[in-house]
Amino acid sequence: MSGPGRASEEGLIARYFAPLAGPGADGLRDDAATLTPTPGHDLVVTADAVVAGIHYFPDDSPASIARKALGVNLSDIAAKGAVPRGFLLTLALPDDWTEAWLAGFSGGLGAAAAEAGCPLLGGDTVRSGGPALIGVTAFGEVPSGGIVRRGTARVGDRICVSGTIGDAALGLRLRLEPDAAWAAALDPALLAVLADRYLHPRPRIALANAIRRHASAAMDVSDGLAGDLAKMLGAGRSARIAVGSVPLSEAAARACAADPDLIDPVLTGGDDYEILCTAAPEKLDALRAEATEAGVPLTAIGTVTSGDGPPRFEMGDGAARVFAAGSFSHF
Amino acid sequence: MSGPGRASEEGLIARYFAPLAGPGADGLRDDAATLTPTPGHDLVVTADAVVAGIHYFPDDSPASIARKALGVNLSDIAAKGAVPRGFLLTLALPDDWTEAWLAGFSGGLGAAAAEAGCPLLGGDTVRSGGPALIGVTAFGEVPSGGIVRRGTARVGDRICVSGTIGDAALGLRLRLEPDAAWAAALDPALLAVLADRYLHPRPRIALANAIRRHASAAMDVSDGLAGDLAKMLGAGRSARIAVGSVPLSEAAARACAADPDLIDPVLTGGDDYEILCTAAPEKLDALRAEATEAGVPLTAIGTVTSGDGPPRFEMGDGAARVFAAGSFSHF
Repeated sequence: MSGPGRASEEGLIARYFAPLAGPGADGLRDDAATLTPTPGHDLVVTADAVVAGIHYFPDDSPASIARKALGVNLSDIAAKGAVPRGFLLTLALPDDWTEAWLAGFSGGLGAAAAEAGCPLLGGDTVRSGGPALIGVTAFGEVPSGGIVRRGTARVGDRICVSGTIGDAALGLRLRLEPDAAWAAALDPALLAVLADRYLHPRPRIALANAIRRHASAAMDVSDGLAGDLAKMLGAGRSARIAVGSVPLSEAAARACAADPDLIDPVLTGGDDYEILCTAAPEKLDALRAEATEAGVPLTAIGTVTSGDGPPRFEMGDGAARVFAAGSFSHF
Repeated sequence: MSGPGRASEEGLIARYFAPLAGPGADGLRDDAATLTPTPGHDLVVTADAVVAGIHYFPDDSPASIARKALGVNLSDIAAKGAVPRGFLLTLALPDDWTEAWLAGFSGGLGAAAAEAGCPLLGGDTVRSGGPALIGVTAFGEVPSGGIVRRGTARVGDRICVSGTIGDAALGLRLRLEPDAAWAAALDPALLAVLADRYLHPRPRIALANAIRRHASAAMDVSDGLAGDLAKMLGAGRSARIAVGSVPLSEAAARACAADPDLIDPVLTGGDDYEILCTAAPEKLDALRAEATEAGVPLTAIGTVTSGDGPPRFEMGDGAARVFAAGSFSHF
């Protein structure tokens, strides 16, 4: 079913993806790769897919799409306290794919993989029969038994997030409504920060060791802080969050000053790819010191409480903020 | 974006997929799993996706689709000489998915996974925005350094295939043209064999150890024997294959007797999920003996030769068969 002038699947792999291949991948000339954790370590495995028109805009640059597809997976690896080891790529292409798109995609993928020290180990290329879908399986490793789980927070633990929250959600909103009134309150450089945060997740790889050594539970924020926190706590635990302590970038702070209702998408919008974690009170200082050493801001925003209600997000006046939509739904 | 009466993603995972979860998967309540090879072993990793309308018929039973999605990956694991350890699932659903479909799918997946001793470790569920896509990443393990590669056959090695070749390609043809003249020459039981071989790959897990101990190179036959053999040999090597020695089922033999041109889809059609391997002549007896012990027929069909031409498929009269289409193309 090759189109005129199109290379074979093997030709495309050799040209665009073999240069990204790591040890164990046999130059992508085989149907499988080998991967062996360092002795005394467990592999950590995760899979996340992004779909054109759902998780990104089909006209995003192919390099940005590649960076997002890999980044959302490396974010999961980092949140588990693991360091990246490699990844597999499942690339389902629409019928109108072009070699120029593929060249841009593999270039962006290679750059993101090299930055993370996470080589390509193999994968599959198929026709999607619809929009493009990019599926990644990412591998990391932790010292044996060291994975940091999502569901292990204890009542009384302090809740922290890395970086700043809500930038990507505002970047998405800006993309959908570029003429929104609040946008006029931000200068172009700040608008560019928001747009970039939506396009380019920055997986917090540098924070992995601090998380592993000091956190009682962790996950990455992908579907919105409010919803992901509820998922993390599950039944029998809740939380009190001081909305005023949730770290905002200058851009997000100005946007919320211009339109206070933007606090809702900031707290529920998702695509943050920051790390949400908990730590016993006596470990908080060590966790924050190591995060600082790793160059990643980490901010305490609240406390795990007992109870079954959703986490309580308290505004400056002590009132709880009630969100219309708790988090991104995948269906 | 949940439709009326639909469960959340977490609810669906808990109901349909958590019962399939293996050790290290934390009941699918986390974003990642751990997987650690037995000491002294390498993990073998592979990823293959199947798409509705391309790799299977959208109206195939969801249990059959699940079996195919996992089976095509376990076939790669077996062909590398590895035994299964687990898998990740990326399930991209069309907008008209139903819970009944999902129940059938997870039932078939659980049965196939249990047969193979290969538990579910995690994955992702997304909207596809088009046809369904089922991506699997499968994990196996081999003693360290023991992976059997695709490109390592030597001139003079004997070429073998497991089971029978061409049944699935004829089953597909039957599905597309149920009233083909040749079909009248086969009784319903034989037609059912062909249909079943197309629907349900039987990954040759039982053959993995024999392959690992005795084969010089191996791959599974997914895109057609002729094309996959050419891929295996690459530049600088070719092969002579005696078409008369290629193992056919009774159903395929009768079909080819009714229409001799069917030998082309038999040799090029794909979906066999048999193992194609090579062995040094002095290892052939041991390889075949171990295959027999494992309950898997293995047939020598030719020899690796030097040269750059495509493998030569010789008919009974010594003439080479030339194929119009060498193998399944993924684009």
